Amino acid sequence: RYNGVLDGDVTAPAGQSRLRSVHDSSINADGGFSLRRVRLVLQGDVTDNIELYLQHDFGTAVNSQSSAEPRQGFGQLRDAYVDVFLDRERSFRLRFGQSKVPLGWENLQSSSNRIPLDRSDAINSAVPGERDLGVTAYYTPPHVQRIWDRLAEDGQKLFGNYGAFGVGLYNGQGTNRVERNDSLMKVAMATWPFALDGLGPLFRGQVLELGGSAMLNRFRPEVRTGGVSAVDYREDRIGLHAILYPQPFGIQAEWVWGQGPQFDTATQRITEAPLEGGYVQLTYDLGETGIGRIRPYGRWQRYRGGWKAATNAPRLETDEIELGLEWPFMDALELTVAYARMKRREADERRLGQAEGDLIRTQLQWSY
Amino acid sequence: RYNGVLDGDVTAPAGQSRLRSVHDSSINADGGFSLRRVRLVLQGDVTDNIELYLQHDFGTAVNSQSSAEPRQGFGQLRDAYVDVFLDRERSFRLRFGQSKVPLGWENLQSSSNRIPLDRSDAINSAVPGERDLGVTAYYTPPHVQRIWDRLAEDGQKLFGNYGAFGVGLYNGQGTNRVERNDSLMKVAMATWPFALDGLGPLFRGQVLELGGSAMLNRFRPEVRTGGVSAVDYREDRIGLHAILYPQPFGIQAEWVWGQGPQFDTATQRITEAPLEGGYVQLTYDLGETGIGRIRPYGRWQRYRGGWKAATNAPRLETDEIELGLEWPFMDALELTVAYARMKRREADERRLGQAEGDLIRTQLQWSY
Amino acid sequence: RYNGVLDGDVTAPAGQSRLRSVHDSSINADGGFSLRRVRLVLQGDVTDNIELYLQHDFGTAVNSQSSAEPRQGFGQLRDAYVDVFLDRERSFRLRFGQSKVPLGWENLQSSSNRIPLDRSDAINSAVPGERDLGVTAYYTPPHVQRIWDRLAEDGQKLFGNYGAFGVGLYNGQGTNRVERNDSLMKVAMATWPFALDGLGPLFRGQVLELGGSAMLNRFRPEVRTGGVSAVDYREDRIGLHAILYPQPFGIQAEWVWGQGPQFDTATQRITEAPLEGGYVQLTYDLGETGIGRIRPYGRWQRYRGGWKAATNAPRLETDEIELGLEWPFMDALELTVAYARMKRREADERRLGQAEGDLIRTQLQWSY
Repeated sequence: RYNGVLDGDVTAPAGQSRLRSVHDSSINADGGFSLRRVRLVLQGDVTDNIELYLQHDFGTAVNSQSSAEPRQGFGQLRDAYVDVFLDRERSFRLRFGQSKVPLGWENLQSSSNRIPLDRSDAINSAVPGERDLGVTAYYTPPHVQRIWDRLAEDGQKLFGNYGAFGVGLYNGQGTNRVERNDSLMKVAMATWPFALDGLGPLFRGQVLELGGSAMLNRFRPEVRTGGVSAVDYREDRIGLHAILYPQPFGIQAEWVWGQGPQFDTATQRITEAPLEGGYVQLTYDLGETGIGRIRPYGRWQRYRGGWKAATNAPRLETDEIELGLEWPFMDALELTVAYARMKRREADERRLGQAEGDLIRTQLQWSY
Repeated sequence: RYNGVLDGDVTAPAGQSRLRSVHDSSINADGGFSLRRVRLVLQGDVTDNIELYLQHDFGTAVNSQSSAEPRQGFGQLRDAYVDVFLDRERSFRLRFGQSKVPLGWENLQSSSNRIPLDRSDAINSAVPGERDLGVTAYYTPPHVQRIWDRLAEDGQKLFGNYGAFGVGLYNGQGTNRVERNDSLMKVAMATWPFALDGLGPLFRGQVLELGGSAMLNRFRPEVRTGGVSAVDYREDRIGLHAILYPQPFGIQAEWVWGQGPQFDTATQRITEAPLEGGYVQLTYDLGETGIGRIRPYGRWQRYRGGWKAATNAPRLETDEIELGLEWPFMDALELTVAYARMKRREADERRLGQAEGDLIRTQLQWSY
Repeated sequence: RYNGVLDGDVTAPAGQSRLRSVHDSSINADGGFSLRRVRLVLQGDVTDNIELYLQHDFGTAVNSQSSAEPRQGFGQLRDAYVDVFLDRERSFRLRFGQSKVPLGWENLQSSSNRIPLDRSDAINSAVPGERDLGVTAYYTPPHVQRIWDRLAEDGQKLFGNYGAFGVGLYNGQGTNRVERNDSLMKVAMATWPFALDGLGPLFRGQVLELGGSAMLNRFRPEVRTGGVSAVDYREDRIGLHAILYPQPFGIQAEWVWGQGPQFDTATQRITEAPLEGGYVQLTYDLGETGIGRIRPYGRWQRYRGGWKAATNAPRLETDEIELGLEWPFMDALELTVAYARMKRREADERRLGQAEGDLIRTQLQWSY
């Protein structure tokens, strides 16, 4: 991945926001190449009823290894779960272990399937890292599975191997973090694809997917003096999503409302404050063009609310437009090029205001 | 793994022991789910005479990553060794690299085979993490191997792929720690299964295994001011074990005597002090019950002595009774539920006295 | 790996160099066994044109985990790249990701192929860890590939799967380190094997390989006060190499000249200072002796210049003679025994002078 800043506030006096993204640490004044994800997956059916999934990532940095400098490239667990299927058709499953939290369509979709470079701030702020440790139940009616299977055969970008309905209990403190209170996070999600063929020949094969998710959690952000906060903060959210799969023109939108921990600069304390945001994305599928299946896209996103994963849960104020295209130019290689106009508040409660910038961002992705 | 504390001293004023276990960091006031072990094994015969074994674990935390908080899920090496067989029957082998130390029957037995949730404090205190870097020689006479093979076919829980006789030289500072003195740890172990068929029809098929182990080591505990102690502490131990394999009724017992580093609260210094402890475990094998092979068990353990792996080698005072049952309810899934009545001194030399508690502990284990 | 110091300055008063090596941290007063490399490789052709390579190492320590003591055995990424072949014969390839930097013949040669225990200080000082993140282009003419293939069939120790010509762009801050300036490192290398058959029957089958490499970089060393230096230091190098493959007698030599960051003890600051050094190695291939293919060798090395990977880029002053032999005594096992007479300045700018020592070093290497 290589980011070039055309023009923007990459440096700033102390107290002012610099142009940074919580999703991509290589947006900074130094630039250079970065390895975003280096993941290995181990997956297998153990019996007819049991399936294992193990994923680790070699893109993790470990801090303070020499002269307070980090070292990169350490291996860390992402997923480690076992699925127990309760029926022969595998429509109902219990998932035990560390896995993705069913909260927000975009969070469940794998990054290799997602067209834009990063997830949106608003949807991802609920579960940075997307995973937690707990127990989930998923259910997918067979005829819903058939619609998804048909879309997958068409090369559509689905949200992955999750259920139409999911409910879960998790530690709630975030991916690979130590649990810090004795309450569990409760999450529920539903998503339903409607085949629009009945609306007339114009809609033949078109699918509209609608759904929503909700979460109840108690969270303790890390604080600047070390450790986590001494008290729990309520973090409750609901979200909605709608996807018209691009055949050839598609719309995808999600929005979330709620409250959660957020640093209040007036009182210099973490408070429970409202949050709101989401995105609208338009995609056009050019189909097989002879040089690959190119998909141009545009996305607008907005977020106002806390970023709980950062120290002191700073407030984010994000407005961003991204225009790009995804080009799988060889079998296992995919190039994404995007222009982004960002207005972002840095995820640091000691810096104020929004930084602006224009970026050209490129990503080469290989998978196997 | 999920621990529920029914009633106990999970919090305490400074200077008093809290209810904690050196084996399970999720016994605390916050609770929540925990991933105990996430291990990958790579094993293979390279030639007729050489076998490789590599195991790593994704259940390792790295400290002080943000706001002095740890991050979990890092990958760390457990075993990395090569076995060189010196004869065609593979009864004699040399093992080079990082591997389990032959000291205490329970330490060699794999956790997936062990029925109770954790190893006992006394036996495990010699080699926390159970592994070290060095050279070991193992010898197993063919007729001993035949007895063990027969027991394994019966579904008995053996101690694994180790020899009837083992001697080894190791760094002696503990699993994945830097060697800190120029002396090596010397270890020897012997274990012998006696087929009791000759004692009459009552004992047909019954096997009694007897043995012992010994260790000579010089150890430098980590100290609270940083780094390791400037001087070596002698750590010498002998242990005995006896196992009557459950057909259907079994007894398993180990005991250890010795001396090692231990923090003395009177003089506020680490001294060489005596240690003693062990366990007695009763098991009943219900056999195939239709819903799985259920094995109820009870274990009593006691330990008085230092815990060298913790900072300043604090003294442990452990008395514990655990009653539970292991239920492999599906092919690759095993549930263990246990009630434990613990009296434990916290592994922190700044806290005194024993904490008491009653716990219900559950563990779901999957393997492949 | 086990190092025994026969006689030498393993300890020293503060301010004096102790006998240490930047390549082998187990050369110290404590000794003991060490695991030098525990590596796993995942490699595969994805399509006819694309090949993936992923290597991680479980010999990495993470610092300050308890009482400021490190823990060892963590998994860290070494290589993660994808090769895109631009022609059917695979003579031209583009390599994207983290991979070895084509700079110095010995740096590209894999450690399992190298006969001496460690790389030389001079050649390795350009790219400690040998890898960086970037883009490289390699080209190997088919008839050069045929010469190398013939040598490989003979069991010669080649430099590996790299091109006769390589040019690359990298972050330039070192393996698994965060990029700290916005300039890229530029590297180029050429190597050419000459078949000497034309020189007469004495030279039948003999191959002489000649080449050179060059690098332009801006580097920021880590400083003792934390973080990296605020300014860039120029680091420009050229090197030459010559290899007569041992059939049965071989010579291998490399030398490098340039300048780079180096701590100046007079002004107590990092400066741009000249560097120079290299090695000459003689090898004799005894061929199949009945007990394995034994290769005795001798190597003399010298280096005067900065070691940029260490804090404050201290000056090294290395003079070393190593005499040893490599003995692959079983199929996948190889023993290397060497005597070394070292004069080394410790890689710590606070210590002065050279330490001397005589060592017997042994290494058991297994591979699969």
